[in-house]
Amino acid sequence: MITAKINVTLKSGILDAQGKTVQHALHNLGIEDVAEVRMGKLILLTFGDISTEEAMRLSEEACKKMLANPVIEDYEIELIHRESH
Amino acid sequence: MITAKINVTLKSGILDAQGKTVQHALHNLGIEDVAEVRMGKLILLTFGDISTEEAMRLSEEACKKMLANPVIEDYEIELIHRESH
Repeated sequence: MITAKINVTLKSGILDAQGKTVQHALHNLGIEDVAEVRMGKLILLTFGDISTEEAMRLSEEACKKMLANPVIEDYEIELIHRESH
Repeated sequence: MITAKINVTLKSGILDAQGKTVQHALHNLGIEDVAEVRMGKLILLTFGDISTEEAMRLSEEACKKMLANPVIEDYEIELIHRESH
């Protein structure tokens, strides 16, 4: 079984208002050594019985067509293989 | 410089309505080999000049106090070291 772990983040130039809010809230909780907070999305896609190549192709397609906005976001795909007995 | 990459996911027993919606939308786009979709949050915390141990301790504290809801969510912390010259 293959699971694609997809991380979608805002491109580095784009203001991350949610991240700023979280950073501020962490400071208020006493966690003050945080220089920057960036928020993103995690999407886990579990595939049926397909090959690694096909899983990567489908994950790329999913990112391009729906999961990420290429104008403001970057994405990173990591494939995880799991055997269950 | 240390960045903590934190992935927060719903515990496996918890219904992921957003994931189901994304799975349905992917099917409509022709990506039909996806057996399951789970959505989560990605939080990147960049620390100032502190040790690995301290970065891990602060990340754990941030998860417990704010970033994750221990009743329904799991979290995973990965520390990334970066040198910039």
